[in-house]
Amino acid sequence: MAVNLSAPATLLPVSGIRVGICAAGIRYSGRPDLVVFEAVPGTEAAAVFTRNRFCAAPVSVARDHLARSSPRALVVNAGNANAGTGAAGIADARACCEALARHLDCVPAQVLPFSTGVIGEPLPVERLVKALPACVKQLDENGWLDAAHGIMTTDTVAKGASRRFTLGSHAITVTGIAKGAGMICPDMATMLAFVATDANVDAQALQACINHAVERSFNRITVDGDTSTNDAFVLLATGRAGNPPVVTADKATFTLLADAVTAVAIELAQSVVRDAEGATKFITIEVVEGASERDCLEIAHTIAHSPLVKTAFFASDPNWGRILAAIGRARVATLDINALSIHLNELCVVSRGALDPRYKEEMGKAIMREPEIKVRVALAAGTHTARIWTCDLSHDYVRINAEYRS
Amino acid sequence: MAVNLSAPATLLPVSGIRVGICAAGIRYSGRPDLVVFEAVPGTEAAAVFTRNRFCAAPVSVARDHLARSSPRALVVNAGNANAGTGAAGIADARACCEALARHLDCVPAQVLPFSTGVIGEPLPVERLVKALPACVKQLDENGWLDAAHGIMTTDTVAKGASRRFTLGSHAITVTGIAKGAGMICPDMATMLAFVATDANVDAQALQACINHAVERSFNRITVDGDTSTNDAFVLLATGRAGNPPVVTADKATFTLLADAVTAVAIELAQSVVRDAEGATKFITIEVVEGASERDCLEIAHTIAHSPLVKTAFFASDPNWGRILAAIGRARVATLDINALSIHLNELCVVSRGALDPRYKEEMGKAIMREPEIKVRVALAAGTHTARIWTCDLSHDYVRINAEYRS
Repeated sequence: MAVNLSAPATLLPVSGIRVGICAAGIRYSGRPDLVVFEAVPGTEAAAVFTRNRFCAAPVSVARDHLARSSPRALVVNAGNANAGTGAAGIADARACCEALARHLDCVPAQVLPFSTGVIGEPLPVERLVKALPACVKQLDENGWLDAAHGIMTTDTVAKGASRRFTLGSHAITVTGIAKGAGMICPDMATMLAFVATDANVDAQALQACINHAVERSFNRITVDGDTSTNDAFVLLATGRAGNPPVVTADKATFTLLADAVTAVAIELAQSVVRDAEGATKFITIEVVEGASERDCLEIAHTIAHSPLVKTAFFASDPNWGRILAAIGRARVATLDINALSIHLNELCVVSRGALDPRYKEEMGKAIMREPEIKVRVALAAGTHTARIWTCDLSHDYVRINAEYRS
Repeated sequence: MAVNLSAPATLLPVSGIRVGICAAGIRYSGRPDLVVFEAVPGTEAAAVFTRNRFCAAPVSVARDHLARSSPRALVVNAGNANAGTGAAGIADARACCEALARHLDCVPAQVLPFSTGVIGEPLPVERLVKALPACVKQLDENGWLDAAHGIMTTDTVAKGASRRFTLGSHAITVTGIAKGAGMICPDMATMLAFVATDANVDAQALQACINHAVERSFNRITVDGDTSTNDAFVLLATGRAGNPPVVTADKATFTLLADAVTAVAIELAQSVVRDAEGATKFITIEVVEGASERDCLEIAHTIAHSPLVKTAFFASDPNWGRILAAIGRARVATLDINALSIHLNELCVVSRGALDPRYKEEMGKAIMREPEIKVRVALAAGTHTARIWTCDLSHDYVRINAEYRS
């Protein structure tokens, strides 16, 4: 049911990163649910985590470890979020790191843990630890696509993307995978995303790069307005390409890298929306001519979170009244209703705050039947813009979330 | 499908108010859809309108008329919201007022118009005006219950409430009706509510009274977070009971009246939630021990608007992880996750931020199967409280809003 989305045929390996996958039986049986990433020594890492105060144990541990060391490995499980598990959950996440560190001959603080799945149940550490040797044995530069399958929960399609570009004479690869289909909102992000490059990148530049990417990708999607307790986006740079280190001061080089990472992050983020629980439509909401970017984002999110707008998209109903009503209640300081216009794709529906005289219902209906629709709101109040991606609200969203225990 | 809700058997007449109902064929055929309220000269009025910037034409006209005169009549139609209709919509709303004013021998500014129904279609003024004589002919003190039926759109149950109390030796009546089942959010309120009393009330006290009531009733309910373009709550006081005028300075008397009006408003507001589109559960969310009322309300609304929490209620799933995740992303300045507790009815589910050791899943499931559930969150941060009412998110919400063109 995903909207114009299929799993990538291949993902490019990233020199210096090996990926191992196995079935640990954490919740599901007979499918891979445990993934290990191993990075060569000297790999730089940057990460963005959920801003939900009620963050999961692995998020706390990963934050702590990242502040103390350069990571050598990530351990990721699906099926159990290790969230709402108190002090025992923290100990469980640490135990996983310790076990993997023994196998990889590094210190536990060099391992970052990630979990996704059901909230409030104890992580089955024994089963997870018991499966680690099999994962480590599988470590391979070509493991990315299998890993994309291994981290899925309610996802229906494995999500990954690769880009290649050159920095001077050095060919650079960026590859990433992600999982997430519900509980998706800005302030993070997809539930989990792991992106790596073989570029040699200075630590500060890598952080700038992830910030640049997240603000244009994972912080620009929303499915249901719910922010997960486990969201994390990790960016690794192994340096194996041998280029002179990318620094922010060299703007042209930094931009090349940041654009490639952002392109991968946008493709992953859009994949999450395309595979959103119950989604039948992929919606781009673009708000332009705003007095500030904040105003544009606020209006875009109010439209995207309106259940009435979302059900109208599901029904292929060009219900512009609901869009106008959502704009009207957005928390922006000034808004001239009589100046704004709304387009569906290239069709002008509302001009100067009222139905455009040339608009005909059949024209709106034809667009609303398409699987990909762009809503463009022009505020006539300034020069700022914002663009986010969302989906419709269908019968299946309710069915999936009433049946699945996340 | 409404949750523990049936239409009132009777509604008490309010001396000085007559109500007329007829079928004008505005959108539906063969059912009443036009209501006129006539008030005796000298009636005081106060009103609260939607804060949606994109407000409907009748809201603009009603605000303007209310600022200029004491109203003698209200004209209310269902089936067409006269919203998103531009300058023609304003002219249409004024034309309805002018027509009714001629029948009642008052000036047009003494008539307040109200509309509810589909957005963006021209109001069929001719049909409405043509039906007014029938409505006026029907005017009767006992017309309240029929009027409650006449203003319904997707409502499945007619909503009304009455209270009686005494001020000194004077028996006072308060009666109200309301409609609304979706597009319901605080900052207003139900779509339309009309409450009248025969008490003699000073204008300033009446405004204080409606403010007191709305903050405890219509501004404390949410179905889908969507605020309508047409929301209005009108309070009329005819003075026919003959009591000395109620003034705010006489606190005891004012409180008696304010409490009675608030009780009617709460019953109407709760009726709207009980009859919410697709609702199968009536949920009270109480947040206590907050640092401020704002914090408590923010957390209550974040829980109430979470589609994941709402679908868990629909599924009778005691998914406390989703409630914690919603609390964790609420926009409050400080929040100690490790101090908070959550009760479902009298059952402690979460204490000190983690699953209560005495909690068992079966206990939670038994409560979640009930049609009325109270979620109580204690923040351990102060003495402020807030309480709101909401409902679950079901298959039928999606079905109704995908099929109905509002």
